Amino acid sequence: VIVVAALNPALDVTHHVASVDWTGVNRPESVRAAAGGKGLNVARTLHALGADVLLLGLAGGPTGAAVRSRLETSGMPVVLSEIAADTRRTFAVVDTGRGHVALFSEPGPVVDPDEYSRFVAAYSDALTGCTAVVLSGSLPPGLPSDAYAVLIRIAASAGVPAILDTSGDALLLGAAGRPGIVKPNLAELSAVAGRDLRWAAPPDRSAVVRAAADLRDRGAGAVVVSMSADGLLAVTDQGMWHARPRPVAGNPTGAGDAAVAGLARGLALGHDWPGRLRDAAALGAAAAAAPAAGEFRPADLEAARASVLVTEVEHS
Amino acid sequence: VIVVAALNPALDVTHHVASVDWTGVNRPESVRAAAGGKGLNVARTLHALGADVLLLGLAGGPTGAAVRSRLETSGMPVVLSEIAADTRRTFAVVDTGRGHVALFSEPGPVVDPDEYSRFVAAYSDALTGCTAVVLSGSLPPGLPSDAYAVLIRIAASAGVPAILDTSGDALLLGAAGRPGIVKPNLAELSAVAGRDLRWAAPPDRSAVVRAAADLRDRGAGAVVVSMSADGLLAVTDQGMWHARPRPVAGNPTGAGDAAVAGLARGLALGHDWPGRLRDAAALGAAAAAAPAAGEFRPADLEAARASVLVTEVEHS
Repeated sequence: VIVVAALNPALDVTHHVASVDWTGVNRPESVRAAAGGKGLNVARTLHALGADVLLLGLAGGPTGAAVRSRLETSGMPVVLSEIAADTRRTFAVVDTGRGHVALFSEPGPVVDPDEYSRFVAAYSDALTGCTAVVLSGSLPPGLPSDAYAVLIRIAASAGVPAILDTSGDALLLGAAGRPGIVKPNLAELSAVAGRDLRWAAPPDRSAVVRAAADLRDRGAGAVVVSMSADGLLAVTDQGMWHARPRPVAGNPTGAGDAAVAGLARGLALGHDWPGRLRDAAALGAAAAAAPAAGEFRPADLEAARASVLVTEVEHS
Repeated sequence: VIVVAALNPALDVTHHVASVDWTGVNRPESVRAAAGGKGLNVARTLHALGADVLLLGLAGGPTGAAVRSRLETSGMPVVLSEIAADTRRTFAVVDTGRGHVALFSEPGPVVDPDEYSRFVAAYSDALTGCTAVVLSGSLPPGLPSDAYAVLIRIAASAGVPAILDTSGDALLLGAAGRPGIVKPNLAELSAVAGRDLRWAAPPDRSAVVRAAADLRDRGAGAVVVSMSADGLLAVTDQGMWHARPRPVAGNPTGAGDAAVAGLARGLALGHDWPGRLRDAAALGAAAAAAPAAGEFRPADLEAARASVLVTEVEHS
């Protein structure tokens, strides 16, 4: 079983509007509400791949009930610990005329220590027989900033490797827990490195490698940087690799989560780095071509897998 | 008892954002979710005035549960008939830097005929001993466009006068049910008149009176037009009056609903037209000065009541 922890899931509400009036009243053409958040996307991708997955998380209030009811129909094993506060929403406004998307992301419910203790107990129980743990997304208010480091250490004491995909302090302090893999994107890596790595296209590889090495110095076993169309760069104790898919047009939202699913599956199955990265980059590309986060078409995945170029990178 | 029917209530979600990026990711500074919709605002205003009020409506799904839980804490008698589909949301983005508000208003759940029949039964039962009925807001999908006309006729057969505040076909077809009062704003009156009455400031009174007379010809007993800072213009079988409050800076959202509450209370108490209009205009002004729809400060109401100028208007 691969355990995916989603501490701050969301109800993702999407409004499609023909031409948005940002100073007036809009009647959306279509309204969609889906269970969302990075952890849910990772778990859905693993479930769609046929992997044995268990989604753990926190949910509460009417918005939490909406998330639960949407997950029930997915057929995926899910255990969400109840909290008193209302689960967060995200609102995406898609301006179908101009092709813009505005996203409004709520901070999440305040989780109290007793509620979090119940989650930690469920998480610890789930680790028996588990092959990998994925910790994905932001921490809700009320949790300590080093919560991921503690969860990674609990997994390590059960012999289970962890993949961490988060940002800011949660990433910096989480790395100290010694996760097997952290998966920042360029924006997240820039934020923890304190310098913007996104200006050059393609990105300045030596600067990215230096920032990734800093994260390894902080405790991460390996750092896999997702770089949108430039694919994945892995900095590991066994060497460095660059996995680059054939460029696809599409929506990058969720591509990073699909790549995390690929890394988790590769870790659980004991694949080597080139194999893991090929799957992860292909899943990212297939997810980018799909209309909704956590989804992909099998044909897109097969085509992307065949097109991914994995090259070993020499230390400069 | 004043019965207020809210067939299409909403969960009103408001995000305050310092400076909105309409093509990117935004983290709201504050998030507020309140039970909303025009009928709820009218009922809340009546409840705050100390009137005996019963809110009837339809609600379903997790969003309906969120609306119910927020209404429970209000202390107001509420009976919402359960529906299978999810109650709608509205989403307001307040750009605190630029002072803009963008509103995204979902169409509402599809209500099936059996569900609506249960509402009509509850409504009919509530009419016993009732002094006035307020029918406020849009009709959810699935209801016939003449639903308000039928509800008004049911009230009339129980001897209960009705106030209708809606727009478009629901207003035009509803007027045929012979409501005692309809309360369009200038935009709604323009839409049913087929010509824009909002260009002139102050509005062209004779054009507004002609459009109001057309609505009376369609069946409305009296037409009270809300004209924002220009107050209320009443066209009735006893004459015409203009009630004008002292201008207040503030948010006009909910001012029309507060005016409807004032008209309903005046109707229930048997006040004459000048008295009803003074209260309605004062409530509208006090609501415009308040931060949230359905709220007002008693001191603002007293000051506004003293400042309202009610004048009889001669037929031209």
